[in-house]
Amino acid sequence: MIISEPLQIAIEELNKFPGIGKKTAQRLTLHILKANSDDVNLLINAIKGLKERLSFCKVCYNITEFEICEICSSTKRDSSIICVVEEVSDVIAIEKSGEYRGRYHVLGGVLSPLSGVNQDDLKIKELLVRLNDSLVTEIILALNPDTEGDTTSLYLAKVLKPYNVKVTRIARGLPMGGDLEFADDATISRAVQGRIVL
Amino acid sequence: MIISEPLQIAIEELNKFPGIGKKTAQRLTLHILKANSDDVNLLINAIKGLKERLSFCKVCYNITEFEICEICSSTKRDSSIICVVEEVSDVIAIEKSGEYRGRYHVLGGVLSPLSGVNQDDLKIKELLVRLNDSLVTEIILALNPDTEGDTTSLYLAKVLKPYNVKVTRIARGLPMGGDLEFADDATISRAVQGRIVL
Repeated sequence: MIISEPLQIAIEELNKFPGIGKKTAQRLTLHILKANSDDVNLLINAIKGLKERLSFCKVCYNITEFEICEICSSTKRDSSIICVVEEVSDVIAIEKSGEYRGRYHVLGGVLSPLSGVNQDDLKIKELLVRLNDSLVTEIILALNPDTEGDTTSLYLAKVLKPYNVKVTRIARGLPMGGDLEFADDATISRAVQGRIVL
Repeated sequence: MIISEPLQIAIEELNKFPGIGKKTAQRLTLHILKANSDDVNLLINAIKGLKERLSFCKVCYNITEFEICEICSSTKRDSSIICVVEEVSDVIAIEKSGEYRGRYHVLGGVLSPLSGVNQDDLKIKELLVRLNDSLVTEIILALNPDTEGDTTSLYLAKVLKPYNVKVTRIARGLPMGGDLEFADDATISRAVQGRIVL
């Protein structure tokens, strides 16, 4: 046996992470093995803390230490706008930009018949419930600009139609710092379609 | 606060791993958060198992569940040859090739004055002790083909001189499946220098 059992188990567990292959898992495992026990305990406690201290916000399904997340419970945020995103990481990305002052709704994925994800697997019903109670005037769809994101956006636009809210989608075009010469055709074509009057 | 504290702690801990940047750490953290508790416990137990069940072999400093590793205690391995490597991962790599039937010695790094690693930080004394007791006739230096690996190999060759053992170094040349056209100059030059008579 080349690799002893505890090593093999740890490699397999780390290999389950998205984007962590067998080789990387082995490297991480050997790093843990060489680390001192205090550092390993810090890591273990950090992982435990994630599951023990965090849960999903009852309103928007963002992660939070509380029943309702800080964004949903803040009186400083504009409650008339809801930005719909796929994942918690998208909330973090938009918050980092500092541009948006409304609230969020995390779908938990996108429609993907091939992966067996249909509308009941996403927090779509929960989004519609929020429209009944509140004074929401605009829904911004901020899903990823790919086939599944687009399909989901179209589906959401359809189910949102009866609710009398403005449904918008974040702009597509050249990324800041990008180079027109090296942009792909689809991006350029979207940038031209989405041109604005100065 | 964009990112809540337990999330921040977990991201920082995962960010300490070699090759895991801030973005990857965030992605892994959110993956753990979405995983079910059983899977997270499997991961935690796998990490704990590494530190609790494994230690370093008292002879060759490979990792093992026992006092002496399976390679050092096996009677089927040739005890007259010791292959010196930098890290445990190198033992795994050589064992996978199935080519080598001798024993190993894991240095735990290479000489690197810039990183503050000198000869006392490596298991060099422990290697010399093995030469006193045993009937070793050959030491194969299998350090990485870079400046630090070469420096360490030269240093080891010097300290091994008084011991009357053959000191060899693994061959350098074109990797199998490699393409001469795309090989770098240093590799081609080493391949030519190391040519063998057919």
